Amino acid sequence: MRVRLLYHTPLSIAAHAGRTCTGNEADAYEEEENVELFLSKIIKKGHESVLEHITYTFRIEGISRALLQELARHRHISLSVLSTRYTLSRDIAKSIENASEFVDDMSESLSYDFMCAYWDYVAELRREISNSSPRNDIIKYFIPECFLTNVVMTLNARELRHIIKLRSAPGALREFRELCATFLFRFPEDHRFMYEDVYRQGGE
Amino acid sequence: MRVRLLYHTPLSIAAHAGRTCTGNEADAYEEEENVELFLSKIIKKGHESVLEHITYTFRIEGISRALLQELARHRHISLSVLSTRYTLSRDIAKSIENASEFVDDMSESLSYDFMCAYWDYVAELRREISNSSPRNDIIKYFIPECFLTNVVMTLNARELRHIIKLRSAPGALREFRELCATFLFRFPEDHRFMYEDVYRQGGE
Amino acid sequence: MRVRLLYHTPLSIAAHAGRTCTGNEADAYEEEENVELFLSKIIKKGHESVLEHITYTFRIEGISRALLQELARHRHISLSVLSTRYTLSRDIAKSIENASEFVDDMSESLSYDFMCAYWDYVAELRREISNSSPRNDIIKYFIPECFLTNVVMTLNARELRHIIKLRSAPGALREFRELCATFLFRFPEDHRFMYEDVYRQGGE
Amino acid sequence: MRVRLLYHTPLSIAAHAGRTCTGNEADAYEEEENVELFLSKIIKKGHESVLEHITYTFRIEGISRALLQELARHRHISLSVLSTRYTLSRDIAKSIENASEFVDDMSESLSYDFMCAYWDYVAELRREISNSSPRNDIIKYFIPECFLTNVVMTLNARELRHIIKLRSAPGALREFRELCATFLFRFPEDHRFMYEDVYRQGGE
Repeated sequence: MRVRLLYHTPLSIAAHAGRTCTGNEADAYEEEENVELFLSKIIKKGHESVLEHITYTFRIEGISRALLQELARHRHISLSVLSTRYTLSRDIAKSIENASEFVDDMSESLSYDFMCAYWDYVAELRREISNSSPRNDIIKYFIPECFLTNVVMTLNARELRHIIKLRSAPGALREFRELCATFLFRFPEDHRFMYEDVYRQGGE
Repeated sequence: MRVRLLYHTPLSIAAHAGRTCTGNEADAYEEEENVELFLSKIIKKGHESVLEHITYTFRIEGISRALLQELARHRHISLSVLSTRYTLSRDIAKSIENASEFVDDMSESLSYDFMCAYWDYVAELRREISNSSPRNDIIKYFIPECFLTNVVMTLNARELRHIIKLRSAPGALREFRELCATFLFRFPEDHRFMYEDVYRQGGE
Repeated sequence: MRVRLLYHTPLSIAAHAGRTCTGNEADAYEEEENVELFLSKIIKKGHESVLEHITYTFRIEGISRALLQELARHRHISLSVLSTRYTLSRDIAKSIENASEFVDDMSESLSYDFMCAYWDYVAELRREISNSSPRNDIIKYFIPECFLTNVVMTLNARELRHIIKLRSAPGALREFRELCATFLFRFPEDHRFMYEDVYRQGGE
Repeated sequence: MRVRLLYHTPLSIAAHAGRTCTGNEADAYEEEENVELFLSKIIKKGHESVLEHITYTFRIEGISRALLQELARHRHISLSVLSTRYTLSRDIAKSIENASEFVDDMSESLSYDFMCAYWDYVAELRREISNSSPRNDIIKYFIPECFLTNVVMTLNARELRHIIKLRSAPGALREFRELCATFLFRFPEDHRFMYEDVYRQGGE
């Protein structure tokens, strides 16, 4: 998977919002260490609503639709997903290759050949039904959930803390744990402290 | 697919809520036709928030994970889904049969034999990796999206109107259109009027 | 305040949903103690999404608009509120009486007379501007937040657990703490166990 | 009221998300007119979920708590509000002045003197109960809803379109209509086209 942070709100915006609650805007001087200290205190007090003012937009390429199923269950995120409708026609060759690579990573025992045969079968099916109009709607029923997709996701820091806590825990789907680890590397340096108390801190 | 309405709120509760807004509780006499008339007016005025007091819980058996992907994108619903983790081990035989039936319904040209061979392969893979702990997490990557699942879904009448409008439209996934049609037959008789202005009324 | 539970989903529906996740519907026998035991385990495991299938509709009469301000900040609830627009014209006399009672309860030092004089002033203002069309929109600016309102509220057991945890804590608004205590008495007997681990268990 | 746009996402991020759905990222050249044209088409097609990737953070100073009551009912926004708890002690003098100005704007017939007397009474009450700990929790019951507050609000373009449609309509609270008009002037030049089809286009 490839994760890119397309856009984010600077921390100072959340600090500004936090100071609005207590009417202390006059105290605001926005040197970096001060903002971190201020937001750390807010997190410790449990006033996480202030973190909703920080939003991130990530581009996530090459995650499986199995992971997408889990990601989409989080309600407080905005997702734009590569539609199977528009893309099945041209992506199949590349998808076989990518998917099998990805699957190899999951288990040594996977047969690349078998998966290729399966896809060949699906591709042939596509040609046979090419006159039927919602062709890709039919074909999508045959996509295995390892099929890779691309996503643009926007969410705020409060929800991201929740997701990272839940999905970096030992019992989570391995691919989702990898995604959480990747997020950590993509955050701006000064945002990382907001995720330290939740990363790998969730229960089973 | 099989849809069963497990529970629902009676219309009179929404009528009571609507009358609370205008302080007219004294006017409430709850004969059926009166409630329908009152709620129809509320819908026409666009005060749909009153409909949020009517919730439905449906049990939906035998829908594909392709449909589940679309269903889960609606944020204002509560879903409990048959987990692939717990059930892959025992459901495979029945799933092949159901899935192929369902798929036949989608296209004449589908080969039952090929799909069975694919599943045999997946089953074998399952045995090979049986010592690895999150076995079903790996296997789920091979599930085709036609794989059937069961869902219990709770949502309110306002959101259901939104879903039926969007998903009964001509451009929607055929299986989702069928689900919308099935909902109509499962509603209590006196709830149906709330969906007449949205069923098959959506654009492309 | 007066709280009445207008409608609720029986526990067995959530138990049914929980068993759907693990495919154990066959095990379901729905004697009461069994359902409580099953849901208690689910809560302990943190799978609270199952509790979203239990919804409650409460009628809450005679809470202040100060409390309403706090209540409305919880996003996962549905509220129908007595509109100031429709009701200012007729409710003023009763509101003075109720409000002052309620306020007496908050502090011994409150002057009933002064508040009455204030309301008389507002009432006179109402008459003076009686030709201006959105009259009540203007008058509402003078309502003190002790002004009583009525609400019909629908929410699910997961969100109600969250609210009770947060708002029964020592630092919460006293009126909100009273509302939480009242909820406990209005639940059906067999629902109470779901709130024992959260009532008065929140931090500052 | 004073409204300041503290931060926003550039349009190109939403365009990027929209192209991800159809797999057309290769076509992306991000000159301004192109982005506007692309997003206009998306809005016309009803694919508004793409607009969720554009978020705005506004600082709104000097709106009444009456307007706040209405604003807070919109669920898909994030609000940080000047707490009455922290600020009653020092803001009263300035609030009387601001509130009466604001109120004058609502009606010629308002008596500044009477409101001042009311506030004097509340201030005295505050001193009397100064030993009771949650002092401001009691005093807040006496705040009239014209009391001014400050808010930091973050929301996305889809929700803002919804709010502007609903609240710029003739039947909306006058102060809310003013807020909607003010938003239009605070948007970056190139964002305005997204609100033209909704501003003052709502029904009664």
